[in-house]
Amino acid sequence: MTRRYIGVIGAGECDAELGRLAEAVGRQIASGGAALVCGGMGGVMEAACRGAKAAGGTTIGILPGPDRADANPYVDVAIATGINEARNLAIIRTADALVAVGGSYGTLSEIGFALKAGKKVVGLRTWEIEGIVPAATAEEAVRLAID
Amino acid sequence: MTRRYIGVIGAGECDAELGRLAEAVGRQIASGGAALVCGGMGGVMEAACRGAKAAGGTTIGILPGPDRADANPYVDVAIATGINEARNLAIIRTADALVAVGGSYGTLSEIGFALKAGKKVVGLRTWEIEGIVPAATAEEAVRLAID
Amino acid sequence: MTRRYIGVIGAGECDAELGRLAEAVGRQIASGGAALVCGGMGGVMEAACRGAKAAGGTTIGILPGPDRADANPYVDVAIATGINEARNLAIIRTADALVAVGGSYGTLSEIGFALKAGKKVVGLRTWEIEGIVPAATAEEAVRLAID
Amino acid sequence: MTRRYIGVIGAGECDAELGRLAEAVGRQIASGGAALVCGGMGGVMEAACRGAKAAGGTTIGILPGPDRADANPYVDVAIATGINEARNLAIIRTADALVAVGGSYGTLSEIGFALKAGKKVVGLRTWEIEGIVPAATAEEAVRLAID
Repeated sequence: MTRRYIGVIGAGECDAELGRLAEAVGRQIASGGAALVCGGMGGVMEAACRGAKAAGGTTIGILPGPDRADANPYVDVAIATGINEARNLAIIRTADALVAVGGSYGTLSEIGFALKAGKKVVGLRTWEIEGIVPAATAEEAVRLAID
Repeated sequence: MTRRYIGVIGAGECDAELGRLAEAVGRQIASGGAALVCGGMGGVMEAACRGAKAAGGTTIGILPGPDRADANPYVDVAIATGINEARNLAIIRTADALVAVGGSYGTLSEIGFALKAGKKVVGLRTWEIEGIVPAATAEEAVRLAID
Repeated sequence: MTRRYIGVIGAGECDAELGRLAEAVGRQIASGGAALVCGGMGGVMEAACRGAKAAGGTTIGILPGPDRADANPYVDVAIATGINEARNLAIIRTADALVAVGGSYGTLSEIGFALKAGKKVVGLRTWEIEGIVPAATAEEAVRLAID
Repeated sequence: MTRRYIGVIGAGECDAELGRLAEAVGRQIASGGAALVCGGMGGVMEAACRGAKAAGGTTIGILPGPDRADANPYVDVAIATGINEARNLAIIRTADALVAVGGSYGTLSEIGFALKAGKKVVGLRTWEIEGIVPAATAEEAVRLAID
């Protein structure tokens, strides 16, 4: 319970370049000794989990659907909620700080909720919103999030 | 069930000017024959409900807490959810289209979710986000939302 | 807001006899001047709404899915939640008292939650659970619930 | 992801005897190689987590509130949902099978939902409901749940 939880928010589908960025974020979270929490599905979430597992980290996936089997294969602890997008709020609440990767509307929604909840949000190629801490690289993003 | 439901999203506290704008939005929704759906609390929500009731409309408040009595006095039908901010998603899902009034982070979160869900969002003094339909006045905003 | 909201909980499928009982419950709720709140779907919920509308009442349906169009045709105010069974809790929280009709597991879950929340639950052909107020007829059930 | 998750449901307050029973259930879950998932709070939940940790197991707590720090000290992975009792559904969905310990109304609600979802529910000093598999001891309960 004392370890830090860093959330990674991003879309369920992403191109190869954003995937590499998300994977690097996951690796950095694991290297930094934090647990990674995300929505447990594909795209940015899967890439980040893959990166975290490659670096020996722990990954938590809070799923929209009712079935743990829907988690991507790099999720260690899968939570099946059955409440669909409302599970996004549990991701925000569970994380100590968040890294937003990419710019989907779902990510925008999570950013808004995280800033409302007073959580630090570090952004990588995401929306330009007052309150987001911008970062240029995965290393910088995770360093800022873990601090 | 055939009538249109227009959602009004905005913060639970607002200054007098934003309140007047929200009240005008509520009046226009009622004049346009639509039901108003919102979070049922104070600020922008209460002002919009007050406007709708002054024009003989119907107001629905989907509350964060467990008690119907928390609704503002201009709510006709109060839904007590007890799921806190997760109720925002029910507001978006229930509305056919939405008018965002003002620029809090909670409103940003609702805008992101509404755009993800494919709902039309008309904006009044709110975030400049690609996908929001901007409006200059309450009349214009509601006309665009009801269309 | 001052009027009473009576919840009707029961399965989404039911036989003709239970449907007649639920319809009578709905009629009595409307005759008693209360609004009916339910899950807005078929079976017991649809029968109860049909009864309430036949007696000139108001019906509120809090739906599991994301689409208001899924409500049964006798629902006046439909709330689309998209949070699936978690919406059952909003039904309980919104109702002042509840009538349980029939004995499915979903109804058992709602009964447990209602009793935990301190709401009165009147039972018609339902589980025999300590804390449920038993009734023999729809009239008696609704009278006990409205009191 | 391949390991089994066994849910423990029970009240947030319990007497010493029920606590010992819950603790034995937790120990057996850990000895059986399964992860324990529960609501992460006090009473039956805390006792079960304490037992699981004493036997070297893994514990997951899905909390009602918005703050991970509310978890009992024996929770390894805490999920803060902020959706209050609606989080009970996530416990049921996440578990492969459940052990109900004791007879509160909240537990009844979870039993109803679990049986509706088609999950096996093993009961220890709990409600006598058709569909619950009764057990006499913690060992028997967990053996039946893990099978």
